[in-house]
Order: sequence, then structure tokens, then C-alpha cells
Amino acid sequence: MPSTLPDFSEIEKAHQRIQKFAHRTPVMTSTYFNEKTGASIFFKCENFQKIGAFKFRGAFNAVSKLTHSAGKKGIVTHSSGNHAQAVALASKMSGYSATIVMPENAPKVKVKAVRGYGADIVFCENTTKAREETAQKVMDETGATFIHPYNHPDVIAGQGTCAKELLEDHPDLDIIMAPVGGGGLISGTAIWARHRNPNIKIIGAEPKWADDAYRSLKSGKIEPVLRTDTVADGLRTSLGELTFQAIQRHVDNIHTVSEEAIISTMKDIWERMKIIIEPSCAVPLAAILENNLDVANLKVGIILTGGNVDLQNLPFA
Amino acid sequence: MPSTLPDFSEIEKAHQRIQKFAHRTPVMTSTYFNEKTGASIFFKCENFQKIGAFKFRGAFNAVSKLTHSAGKKGIVTHSSGNHAQAVALASKMSGYSATIVMPENAPKVKVKAVRGYGADIVFCENTTKAREETAQKVMDETGATFIHPYNHPDVIAGQGTCAKELLEDHPDLDIIMAPVGGGGLISGTAIWARHRNPNIKIIGAEPKWADDAYRSLKSGKIEPVLRTDTVADGLRTSLGELTFQAIQRHVDNIHTVSEEAIISTMKDIWERMKIIIEPSCAVPLAAILENNLDVANLKVGIILTGGNVDLQNLPFA
Repeated sequence: MPSTLPDFSEIEKAHQRIQKFAHRTPVMTSTYFNEKTGASIFFKCENFQKIGAFKFRGAFNAVSKLTHSAGKKGIVTHSSGNHAQAVALASKMSGYSATIVMPENAPKVKVKAVRGYGADIVFCENTTKAREETAQKVMDETGATFIHPYNHPDVIAGQGTCAKELLEDHPDLDIIMAPVGGGGLISGTAIWARHRNPNIKIIGAEPKWADDAYRSLKSGKIEPVLRTDTVADGLRTSLGELTFQAIQRHVDNIHTVSEEAIISTMKDIWERMKIIIEPSCAVPLAAILENNLDVANLKVGIILTGGNVDLQNLPFA
Repeated sequence: MPSTLPDFSEIEKAHQRIQKFAHRTPVMTSTYFNEKTGASIFFKCENFQKIGAFKFRGAFNAVSKLTHSAGKKGIVTHSSGNHAQAVALASKMSGYSATIVMPENAPKVKVKAVRGYGADIVFCENTTKAREETAQKVMDETGATFIHPYNHPDVIAGQGTCAKELLEDHPDLDIIMAPVGGGGLISGTAIWARHRNPNIKIIGAEPKWADDAYRSLKSGKIEPVLRTDTVADGLRTSLGELTFQAIQRHVDNIHTVSEEAIISTMKDIWERMKIIIEPSCAVPLAAILENNLDVANLKVGIILTGGNVDLQNLPFA
């Protein structure tokens, strides 16, 4: 796997690759949240993206960069989240087979979704070691290509296309915010936004219960996530080498928020904006509200990352 | 109250009145539902409208047609649903006071929403008689103008602006569908759509548990709703004289659906489209799916009427 960060030109190329296949998602505004924060907030709605999350962008870009002969040997990844569905669909659309390594206890709804996109599933124990070994075994046996969920230049470049579209629609943003899990989204976002506007502020947001990026930025080395029970299930992962580099280089600040703020902001977005977002999406706006960030009279772009939730198990119901 | 139906020119004028104040709501599509039905479905998203429902259009049109001296005496209506919020906000935006008559047992969330728009609330017993008498008393004491939720030409004209926008965006629809409660929306929709295209099919949809419009169309007279417990709480009302006229004249067919179909279609729309709709919205699509309507290769417009639901009390949770 190449080990350097993509630059803006890779994001441009990624956009050319994906734009016929990904949705150009709408940007929504809310009078209620503008009044509440004093800012003009522009929500980039990746909950309306294919597979219901921005992850499709990175996965599709990575898959479509494969040579035909490599692609024919298949794609493999390990994930029980949106990246699994993204790789499954991107592979299917490219005519390749995909194998997704999932823990035995993965939620049935996620297993069903991945199967729905035609991927094979290999179950393993719910440990990082078992997942990595199982994926390696698939690679050894089939010659399949592994696509990491975030620590991969083509994935990062793909995720950066989201900020590209947002800044095309609203070039004069003062701040751009995204949640930080493994860091693929904020990395692509930061690389593109910094290229377009050296003065734009790039702000990450994390649950306090998964504040590894916040701590990593302070300590100067990758810190692990210490607990994996935040309601923002998309943000339970630690940074990778590449994403840590991008964050160190470009991200101005990372704010952390309580579980209560995530849940109440999520509910507020559902009620006021009438859109379904997963808990991770609520984290940047929760950071503004809980930490009283001074955004008065500023134009703030927030990436709403996805809308895949279990409606039978809502955190506020 | 004038007793004739508005014609298309009244809808044009209504649109001029409201367009600076109402949202031009987006039209969404879904590959999933297109594949499931064989049609191309265009969902007009009034869940994103001000107050979270199309009702704002009719209320604002009616309020803005008042003379200043009439408006200064205030507006009154009785409703515990979206019309209450719509009248409250439209009055506030026009600088008039509004009094909403609500039953003592109205859900707190709805009382709070109406108060949030600055209206006065007068509580009464939960009977039609008590509501009408209480509203009449307010009118007698203050000279306020009563705005009926649907049996009112200005309200019908306002609701018709929704179909006007939908047909501006997609002029070649073969079918336009809307749910039928009191009939204000389908009346305005039918008047406009028939004017634009004499061949378009106009199809209403109702819960089987509130199939009064279906029965009225058959019997040739206004039939009452026989039970008021359908999950589609926006559709529990009977037709009025004006809306019955419009339906008799213009609506091709009314289909009825089971409670199960409403709930499962609602959940399907939430999951697949990532938008929050109230149960009433799901009724037209449920009619296509449950009754196997042959819409293959047709272009179908469906009005999603609103998104005001109690997230703590979802029918599928």
C-alpha cells in the first residue's frame, strides 16, 4: 500500500472517477440552528449518499483505481460498518467480487445489507487480530486486494470529494467541520479545503469517549481509543499513520463532546431538519453547542456523514 | 366564507403570495422504490416545508389575503395538528395574533410547538361541538377571522401551490398522488394538475380505517369517518363540501390501504430515503405497493405531506 498522503490533484481525479456513480448530495440549511448558533451552517448531506454514507466515495475511488486483472481477483476488507457496505457496492458496480470479514456478533441488519450488495461474508472472532488474520487468509488464497477503511490514500482522496462539492456550492465557508473516527474523512476534507483556501479553519469533533485524535494531536503520536462504547458507533476507531499525518498538518482544532450532547443534538436534527442521521453526524454540531464555540456571523460547513441507524434501537427513544 | 372552489388562477396568485415565505421544497427520487414499483417516482418533500408540513401553504395564503383591519382582529382556528402550527406561524409572520382552540388532552409536544410560534391557546373538551363553540366564542368576542383547515377556498388554493411546483420541476408526470384527509391538499392538487394536463391521472389514497373519501365518491354524498384510530393521524377527518366537490370533479380514483402497509412503507421510506415522514405521507406509496397498482414505466408524483412525528412514540419501534 502506498504510504503517502494524496494531494489535491488526487482528489480532483477521484472526483472525476466517482461523479457519475456517486450522488452529488444536497446541502441543507436550518433557520433553527442558524438562530441557535448565530452562524450560517451548511450541512452536506452524505446520509443521502449511496449506501447511506460518505464511505461510498472512498471505496469506489479505491476500487476503480484497480487494474482489471487485480480487480478480477476480488476485493477484501474487514468492517462491520458503512465501509463494508461501501466496498460491497463499489465492487459490485465494477463487476468484481468482494469478501467482507465481519465479527460473528455483527448486527443482523448490517450482515443483511452487505449480502444485499452481493458480497461474500466471512465471519471471525470479534478481535482485531482475528479480523486481520482472516482478511490476510482471503488475500493469500485468492490474491484479492485489501482496501483499508481509512488509512489508504485512494480512500482518503475519495472522501475528500465531499468537501470539494461543498466548497463548490459554498466557496466562502470560514470553517469546515467533520467528525473524526479513523480520520479518512477529515483528512480528505482538510487536504482539499486547505488547497482551496489557506485561511479556512478545519475543525474535527469527537466523542469524549473516543477522543483519541484529540489526545494524539496533543501528544504528537497516535493514541489508541480507550473505550469503544460511544453511541457514535462510526467513531470508535483509532487513527492510522496517514490520517494522523493529515490531521497534524492541516487540522486546526479537535473538540470533544459528551454522549448526552451527541444524543440530544441528533434528536434535534431529526426533529428540526426531518432527516435521518446516525449519531456520528451530530458530533460537530454538538461541539458547537456544548462547547459554546464562537461561530457568530461565520459560515460553517458541516459534513453529515451518514444515515444508517437501527430504527428499532434509537438512542433517544 | 366563500363557497366556491378556487380555479387555477387562484393557485397562481397564491403562489405569488407565498413563494417568498414558504420553502420551495426539493423533489427526491429513490432507486430502491423505482425498482420496487417499476415506475419513476418523484417525491415532493413537504416534510421540509415550514412548520414541517404542506399546511403552511394554505394557512399563509389565507392569512395574507386578509385586509389589514381584519387581520388586526386576529385569526382563530381549531386543530391539534399541523394546521394549528401553520396558522400560528402564518399569523406571526403577518404580525397578527392567533388563537388556537385545542382539546384539553392534546399532546404536549403539539401544544408546545403552537406556543413556540407565539399563538394563544384556548383549551376545550375533546368534542367537535366544544371546539366549534369555543372558536365561535373567540370570534364573537374579538372579531377574529376563522380559518378552516381544509374547507376554505384560500386554503385549497394555497395547498395547490405544491403541485404547481412539482409540475414545474417535472412537467411530464403521468400520475399525481396525494393522501386524503379533509381533502384540502388533493383538491388544490387536482385543480392545478388538471389545468396543466387534462390527461394526468389524479389518485388519492386513504387508510382503510379512514376511507370516508373512498365511500363518499361511491355513494355520491359526504360520508363520515367511522373510526379515528388510524396511525395516519393527519387523515382522520371527513371531507367538506368544497373538497368533496373538487374530488368528485377531478380525482380519478381513491385507493385504500391497511395499517400494516402504512407502517411498513413509512419505515421503508425512513430507512431507504433517510428522511423523516409522518405516517400520512406513506399512504400513497403504500397504495401502489399493497394494491399492486400498475405503474410500470410511468412517471408518478407523490406528495410527502409532512414530517411531524413524536420520536418517542414511533409506530414501528
